Amino acid sequence: MLKVAVVGATGYTGEELVRILASHPKVKVVSLTAKIDAPEKIQDLYPSLLGKIDMTCELPNAEKAARLADFIFLALPHRVSMEIAPVFLKRKKKVIDLSADYRLKKDVYAKWYGAAHKDAAGLKLAVYGLPEINRNKIKTARLIANPGCYPTSIVLGAAPLFKNDAADNGFVIADSKSGVTGAGRRADIALGFGEVNESLKAYKINEHQHSPEINQELSKLAKKDVAVVFVPHLVPISRGILSTIYVRLKKPLGTARVVEMYKKFYENEPFVRVLEEGKLPQLKDVRGTNLCVMGIKVDAKKGLCIIVSTIDNLTKGAAGQAVQNMNIMCGFKETEGLI
Amino acid sequence: MLKVAVVGATGYTGEELVRILASHPKVKVVSLTAKIDAPEKIQDLYPSLLGKIDMTCELPNAEKAARLADFIFLALPHRVSMEIAPVFLKRKKKVIDLSADYRLKKDVYAKWYGAAHKDAAGLKLAVYGLPEINRNKIKTARLIANPGCYPTSIVLGAAPLFKNDAADNGFVIADSKSGVTGAGRRADIALGFGEVNESLKAYKINEHQHSPEINQELSKLAKKDVAVVFVPHLVPISRGILSTIYVRLKKPLGTARVVEMYKKFYENEPFVRVLEEGKLPQLKDVRGTNLCVMGIKVDAKKGLCIIVSTIDNLTKGAAGQAVQNMNIMCGFKETEGLI
Amino acid sequence: MLKVAVVGATGYTGEELVRILASHPKVKVVSLTAKIDAPEKIQDLYPSLLGKIDMTCELPNAEKAARLADFIFLALPHRVSMEIAPVFLKRKKKVIDLSADYRLKKDVYAKWYGAAHKDAAGLKLAVYGLPEINRNKIKTARLIANPGCYPTSIVLGAAPLFKNDAADNGFVIADSKSGVTGAGRRADIALGFGEVNESLKAYKINEHQHSPEINQELSKLAKKDVAVVFVPHLVPISRGILSTIYVRLKKPLGTARVVEMYKKFYENEPFVRVLEEGKLPQLKDVRGTNLCVMGIKVDAKKGLCIIVSTIDNLTKGAAGQAVQNMNIMCGFKETEGLI
Amino acid sequence: MLKVAVVGATGYTGEELVRILASHPKVKVVSLTAKIDAPEKIQDLYPSLLGKIDMTCELPNAEKAARLADFIFLALPHRVSMEIAPVFLKRKKKVIDLSADYRLKKDVYAKWYGAAHKDAAGLKLAVYGLPEINRNKIKTARLIANPGCYPTSIVLGAAPLFKNDAADNGFVIADSKSGVTGAGRRADIALGFGEVNESLKAYKINEHQHSPEINQELSKLAKKDVAVVFVPHLVPISRGILSTIYVRLKKPLGTARVVEMYKKFYENEPFVRVLEEGKLPQLKDVRGTNLCVMGIKVDAKKGLCIIVSTIDNLTKGAAGQAVQNMNIMCGFKETEGLI
Repeated sequence: MLKVAVVGATGYTGEELVRILASHPKVKVVSLTAKIDAPEKIQDLYPSLLGKIDMTCELPNAEKAARLADFIFLALPHRVSMEIAPVFLKRKKKVIDLSADYRLKKDVYAKWYGAAHKDAAGLKLAVYGLPEINRNKIKTARLIANPGCYPTSIVLGAAPLFKNDAADNGFVIADSKSGVTGAGRRADIALGFGEVNESLKAYKINEHQHSPEINQELSKLAKKDVAVVFVPHLVPISRGILSTIYVRLKKPLGTARVVEMYKKFYENEPFVRVLEEGKLPQLKDVRGTNLCVMGIKVDAKKGLCIIVSTIDNLTKGAAGQAVQNMNIMCGFKETEGLI
Repeated sequence: MLKVAVVGATGYTGEELVRILASHPKVKVVSLTAKIDAPEKIQDLYPSLLGKIDMTCELPNAEKAARLADFIFLALPHRVSMEIAPVFLKRKKKVIDLSADYRLKKDVYAKWYGAAHKDAAGLKLAVYGLPEINRNKIKTARLIANPGCYPTSIVLGAAPLFKNDAADNGFVIADSKSGVTGAGRRADIALGFGEVNESLKAYKINEHQHSPEINQELSKLAKKDVAVVFVPHLVPISRGILSTIYVRLKKPLGTARVVEMYKKFYENEPFVRVLEEGKLPQLKDVRGTNLCVMGIKVDAKKGLCIIVSTIDNLTKGAAGQAVQNMNIMCGFKETEGLI
Repeated sequence: MLKVAVVGATGYTGEELVRILASHPKVKVVSLTAKIDAPEKIQDLYPSLLGKIDMTCELPNAEKAARLADFIFLALPHRVSMEIAPVFLKRKKKVIDLSADYRLKKDVYAKWYGAAHKDAAGLKLAVYGLPEINRNKIKTARLIANPGCYPTSIVLGAAPLFKNDAADNGFVIADSKSGVTGAGRRADIALGFGEVNESLKAYKINEHQHSPEINQELSKLAKKDVAVVFVPHLVPISRGILSTIYVRLKKPLGTARVVEMYKKFYENEPFVRVLEEGKLPQLKDVRGTNLCVMGIKVDAKKGLCIIVSTIDNLTKGAAGQAVQNMNIMCGFKETEGLI
Repeated sequence: MLKVAVVGATGYTGEELVRILASHPKVKVVSLTAKIDAPEKIQDLYPSLLGKIDMTCELPNAEKAARLADFIFLALPHRVSMEIAPVFLKRKKKVIDLSADYRLKKDVYAKWYGAAHKDAAGLKLAVYGLPEINRNKIKTARLIANPGCYPTSIVLGAAPLFKNDAADNGFVIADSKSGVTGAGRRADIALGFGEVNESLKAYKINEHQHSPEINQELSKLAKKDVAVVFVPHLVPISRGILSTIYVRLKKPLGTARVVEMYKKFYENEPFVRVLEEGKLPQLKDVRGTNLCVMGIKVDAKKGLCIIVSTIDNLTKGAAGQAVQNMNIMCGFKETEGLI
């Protein structure tokens, strides 16, 4: 049994991670920590874990977690992860960081996250943990930068077109709609039920901190610069993202051809499903799962391909994908504990 | 035109008050203040007010508000109102306080709100502003203690039985379900969309600060001590309360007889509607209105009368009722600006 | 007082229309009809109307409505309106049709609504009732085709760019998010709470029946063919639409310049508000109002203008706009009964 | 591996059952049927099942299901189950019926479900499948009447008091709040998002078809007649029930004593959790789980015990409990596939 620690076990992502790990047949959770007032049984904090786990969530203590565990999940706010990851890395532990701290190049990080990066060594080790794209690198990685939720939905949704050189890299729009847990569990009037319910809004157009991550990953696939117009929206749901992606095609392709391209691209992927021509996904198809489901429609006159891609932000967009990465890193079956 | 000021214009109640007053044909809003970072047009803060009002919300300045206005609404947190009301009262202004500060007797207040009362003089002047019960006293009042949202739904729902000596005062249960705006606009994880949505909970059983207010008002009606078992619940809606009230009857009465009693009790009330036997209200019947709609069912075998009473917590439960009180105090038509 | 009839008073739009008309100072509602089982007081069907109106909703009888009323609102399903409108038109009554029956040219209608048009004469009379664009024609119209909800949000959002020849007509995407009442009050599993809540979906991409209406109106403004890529989405809210519109600019313009253009275009409009640079609207800004609020952001590198435009689908998107049209047709103040 | 069939696989309960069974380590699903237009892969109907199961949902064919499977789940509307169960019973298959058809005595059934019972033999065999109460009988049962969702929350919530003769059987009120999936997946305006969202209502007071089931089971526990005042409410959530139960105590007992009684009563139960004094459950504690979590508060002056009991209506209230029963009947670990 792999001994794992979750650092930051009480946020929305941490809670989901504990839920998945507690039922994972190859894993033993040996340490849970979080910034809480006093140690408390995790199943008292989250009674839905009752019967799945019986364990005290302790106050943060990286040294102790490093002694107990061989595999570490960091479910911490950005800027905090890069302070703590080195403690585990220098002890040769494997680490999956769910924050943004290891996803971007040093200078891009500094620009978008408002702080100089503090762990250049870690940054060099880090592999971007999108298994459908980077599976081979993930296998041998010691440090995974687990992707953001928006980027997961968008990069998976656009990857086949860019990888197959079928997309006009000058023209990509991602109009994404996200539930509220994507913003984390924190006291904020703007996240209050009275503000979010029966409302909708776009925010941070082209200024969202996930923008550089989306651009970086699509650029790697396209082997040239891609700059997505990224417009995130907040919708009154608890969990889930649905991204509607508009990509101009380099040459004429009908819906059937693009669906075929996507089906081929993802044919061996256990967590990606491409719907038949004429079908579109809905968020409830993926709620609570590690799936990404997508539907495709080409506007032939305009030469525009529209991909609707949906994930659960807490599973495929965070905790589920982290466990998928762990499975790959440890040689477990990739779907273990996730289906 | 009556010159009115709203002190605390940016909470959920304050916003609703401004919306109603802005369209009120007998009123001119002359002062809006709130604890905000800097003065700002109220229609910029709440664009839905566009076209209804064009006015700057200023920083708190009671002296100035008192110079400008003749009628003052205090939409402030409890404990704050009693510090500020005297400024207006000593200048002979009429005041409606929407907090709990003037609703209870001194000692009861201290016990439930954790602070000694600081305005004994005001407390003596204050009239409990439930028009269906206290209309005559309200007409000549200088200071109104505007009722709480839960008490409004429960006292109106139970009043006819108690007033007509038909209720067993030893046995009343109020199982109330409230939307989230009842808790005010504030940063609190427990009020976050991710916590409230797809959840339900009971809280503060018999310990809610509205308990003494409910008991006090029903006791006055019954002319003997009434102690309600009060169980509030939080439900994932933005606005509204539905209270299911269980009252044991002193003597056998069928549903038809109780409906008749209620219809008679409220026959001239513009804002109370008693449904016919066999019908039950739903919250959407009252959303955005100043109505209280109720349905009645008697369990004859048990001698138990069940009243379902529903209001919008921001209108009849707060701002609408305050304007109804103002209308009465100023000799306007009682429904002015409210229908 | 203008004598008005509402034909189809019990759908979501009809209910909202009755609510607005009941409080309108220049109007007397003289006839309400709907396909219901038996005549019933409208305030019993919708208790929230209590105090605003006291009137029986009768079974459909166009002849009788024509005798009683001088101004007729048809809140009927498409294909039904064109059967009934002639009854009123031949008696020289003024008619506002809230269905799609008089919005499109004959052949386009037949193609998108699956039925030959049956009232060629009416079609000739009809004026598309978007006041911000067609106010002068509306003044003298006898029959108004009241715009659809999606088209209102999109045409208003894109009009200044097209009217000012600043838009590349080959490239417009409208990614719209709508609440559920847009689909009408009807029994349909897909509209059930259990299906819609905690879900999101895109549907009818480029196949929505509002597509030709959007294209037709923008083409008129642009004086050349415009074909919008229209992607509607269903979101779990009751009322409201937020459309995110992507328009390629013909020549470089910054956000400030476009905001200025929009402010000028709408400077005298009582129901349109253009937010300052840096601000974006949210649906709650317009809920329950007849407003359209929009925010603008230009991606200068891409030469792409992003407009976020939001309305309440039942007011500015249907009943409110109908009353605005009535006000214009009858020489009332345009905001009468709406603010 | 146990070969199981699900008859009625496409309702909310059927879907949940398939989800649980697909991941159950001791089970092989061999037949899925439903009244659908044409056979279709279940993972196409419910993409969230992708990877968990790959199977066609066929049209109803009881004979065929009986040939293929040894264990049958009937997730059918009431009145339909009793027509089909005999097909399986006479072939000595084990059956769990999730409808109401085998829960009540013949005459009580006829009264509440408006139809004479058609399977007297089956009724004689049937065991009421509430494991916490009837575990021993379930072990050897051939036909289980799986409990209703409301009754599960209420009977579990009140059982310890009645079993320990601590409750006044003349006085029990159950004020229950339920999500929408409890009403099944069907086209009904009253279940539409536009009707349910931002609303609340009580319905069928003392007339809900679950009333006799609640009374029957509590009466068995109390060994005397219990008649609960049952007031169900509809709240805008997808799944879950929270019941607030008011029971008069026969003799004075404090909260601590009752909590102790409950903890003892449920001490070995894997799916019931009694919270410590001072704590109350929320629905999110149980969403997606097979748990029943409860909190207790005694009003000592009134001699009234208030129990708040919450379950997920689709798991512990239906499909999860059915699998729990299957586990017991087949000698599997009781929590297998459920935690």
